Amino acid sequence: MRGVEKALEEAKRRADLNHYLYINERAVDELELLRRSGRCGALCGVALAVKDNIEVAGMPTTNGAPYMKKMSDRTAPVVKTLLSEGAVVVGKTNMHELALGATNVNPHFGPAKNPHDPGRITGGSSGGSAGAVAVGAADLGIGTDTGGSVRIPAALCGVVGYKPPYGKIPTEGVLPLAQSLDHVGFLARTVKELVDVLSAVGWAPRGLQRPKRFRFAVLLGISEPTRYVEKAFWRAVAALESIGGERDEEFLNAARYSAARAALLLSEAAANYYGYLRSMGSQMGRDVATLLSAGAALPAVAYIVARRVKEEATAYFNSLFKKYDVVVTPTTATEAPRIEEVENVAVRPKLLAYTELFNLTGHPAISVPAPVSGLPVGLQIAAADEEVLLSIASAYEEEALLR
Amino acid sequence: MRGVEKALEEAKRRADLNHYLYINERAVDELELLRRSGRCGALCGVALAVKDNIEVAGMPTTNGAPYMKKMSDRTAPVVKTLLSEGAVVVGKTNMHELALGATNVNPHFGPAKNPHDPGRITGGSSGGSAGAVAVGAADLGIGTDTGGSVRIPAALCGVVGYKPPYGKIPTEGVLPLAQSLDHVGFLARTVKELVDVLSAVGWAPRGLQRPKRFRFAVLLGISEPTRYVEKAFWRAVAALESIGGERDEEFLNAARYSAARAALLLSEAAANYYGYLRSMGSQMGRDVATLLSAGAALPAVAYIVARRVKEEATAYFNSLFKKYDVVVTPTTATEAPRIEEVENVAVRPKLLAYTELFNLTGHPAISVPAPVSGLPVGLQIAAADEEVLLSIASAYEEEALLR
Repeated sequence: MRGVEKALEEAKRRADLNHYLYINERAVDELELLRRSGRCGALCGVALAVKDNIEVAGMPTTNGAPYMKKMSDRTAPVVKTLLSEGAVVVGKTNMHELALGATNVNPHFGPAKNPHDPGRITGGSSGGSAGAVAVGAADLGIGTDTGGSVRIPAALCGVVGYKPPYGKIPTEGVLPLAQSLDHVGFLARTVKELVDVLSAVGWAPRGLQRPKRFRFAVLLGISEPTRYVEKAFWRAVAALESIGGERDEEFLNAARYSAARAALLLSEAAANYYGYLRSMGSQMGRDVATLLSAGAALPAVAYIVARRVKEEATAYFNSLFKKYDVVVTPTTATEAPRIEEVENVAVRPKLLAYTELFNLTGHPAISVPAPVSGLPVGLQIAAADEEVLLSIASAYEEEALLR
Repeated sequence: MRGVEKALEEAKRRADLNHYLYINERAVDELELLRRSGRCGALCGVALAVKDNIEVAGMPTTNGAPYMKKMSDRTAPVVKTLLSEGAVVVGKTNMHELALGATNVNPHFGPAKNPHDPGRITGGSSGGSAGAVAVGAADLGIGTDTGGSVRIPAALCGVVGYKPPYGKIPTEGVLPLAQSLDHVGFLARTVKELVDVLSAVGWAPRGLQRPKRFRFAVLLGISEPTRYVEKAFWRAVAALESIGGERDEEFLNAARYSAARAALLLSEAAANYYGYLRSMGSQMGRDVATLLSAGAALPAVAYIVARRVKEEATAYFNSLFKKYDVVVTPTTATEAPRIEEVENVAVRPKLLAYTELFNLTGHPAISVPAPVSGLPVGLQIAAADEEVLLSIASAYEEEALLR
């Protein structure tokens, strides 16, 4: 961990990357006070980057939308729990408007820029939290993930992004996007740091055992990764084999699941933001206004059928997890697109196709960097069991990245 | 209990009332066989009238719709459980088409006729089961209740209709109407007989204690009962006071709850029966086709908001049930309408306004006859707890009806 002082310094030094929408100038003083008063616990001085749809008392919350800006008077329990062990909020981070998009090209606050190439996107919607962690402007990023919004920017920025199982992390004080898919998730530089922080507050098991042998399936047929992503992905798969993984392959036509996820997302988002669409629609980004309008037009029958498909998908993956300890995919089908490319409608499914599956099913999933020398690529690992997931991710990290 | 022989005889003798769509001619033989082979249990010879949306192997199932008619090869667990103690199915009973209506005026099979005046409806959608119990053509009626479909015909036919809490009775083998509101329920001549049967299979507590004192609220403001219903209702309330009830009143504007129940009902019904509407719409009753078309046109946002209102309503009633042991209303706002009156659109809300509340919240509710000399009127009692509900209903019955 680099700690609050260094993180705050880095946040200011790399202001050009547009990761933070608000910086907590009192962060160092807060830490001093905690130390002097003996209130610093297991996370003393850990620097938090909090996505701007999560409330922290005394700081503004925008939800990536200036028309929603307000001063918060409560702190979301997910943040409060970390603060109670001595962590300190460095600031509130850039995000896709309303979290309804995976590029983090925010028309109001500007795009969050990829530290590996500032002409490229961080991905999103938790792009500011991912970018801040990548440059050392935070130790732990807190984000939300409704279709991949933690894992996608983790993959594109070269950090670790973890979506715990649905319902595990409290969502009070977190502005909703689509309640049946919304997860709170975390970003860190390594699996080790992630687990160190989360286990200090009971959100990850302590003392992970290195797996001796495990079975995993590569999921095929979901999307078409770029050649660059494909090569990196198979290097990551080789690393899994070298730590005892027995590989198999499963073919999945995920079009039905993707359509169901979209129906749930768009109609729930429209139910949440229909008032803003009607009164503020002209101020909204065109992509967001279009998606909300589409959601408002969806029939209830489509929503009900989508809920049934959600149950089907969950049952399907539960059956896979009886055969395999984990399943793996690339996190995204493309490396970080250039900022101007995001107008291309083909980009969105390239970002979401792999991650959204586990919002539909609610299973825990993590993105860890694949071994690359150029732009980052993510390996997504999903499991039925968090402990299995994190122990395999941790062993993979030691093998593929830290040696 | 009158038993299978007498019930079967009565079912045939009163065929003019159109309660049964199918009669099990083997019923007496089945009972003989059970007796001879020593397989008769606690419910030996209890005569069951099974609504025709519930499957019994070897008998046809129509769901009140000839275009859905099939021979069943499985028995719904709710029926199987009763059969395993020696109960016998007398037949399958008339119902509102698809269970989507409260009058039981079925355009395909004819209306189920009220035993107290064959020119009047039984109410529905479980009208055949209620009517059969009322004339002694069954000891226990099995029905379904999505807005009042067990309690309404119980009230209009002068029997007891009980909707256990949501999820208590298995719905496998029961054709769905609207899954978030569907309940299986029971009809019997008295609370005592009802509890005797249900407690034999663990669906009601044994040895109910007579309550000494209890608090109850009359819910006002929901609908406008006819003068005849109103007078009967207040006599029933007086009986509750005379068995130790302390009366209070609560005012409830239930319009929002009613709209939410309708949105859930119509969109889920449309999701279930959209295929039939498209292919068989011209064969459907006009009321059913209109409701399914309305459901198919409802937006997802309305459905999502309705789900939130459902949670609100449940929380509201949970808070009432902290103040009161039970709440009471008339079961319906009108005594049984004449068959030709059901074309009047004002009839539907008069039947449903009180009962549908507890489909939205899922709380257990029962309809017991109010003290009348003319057409039957129902007293609806609802509670958070089944044991409290049934013990008060049982004590009321002894006081008001059986003395």
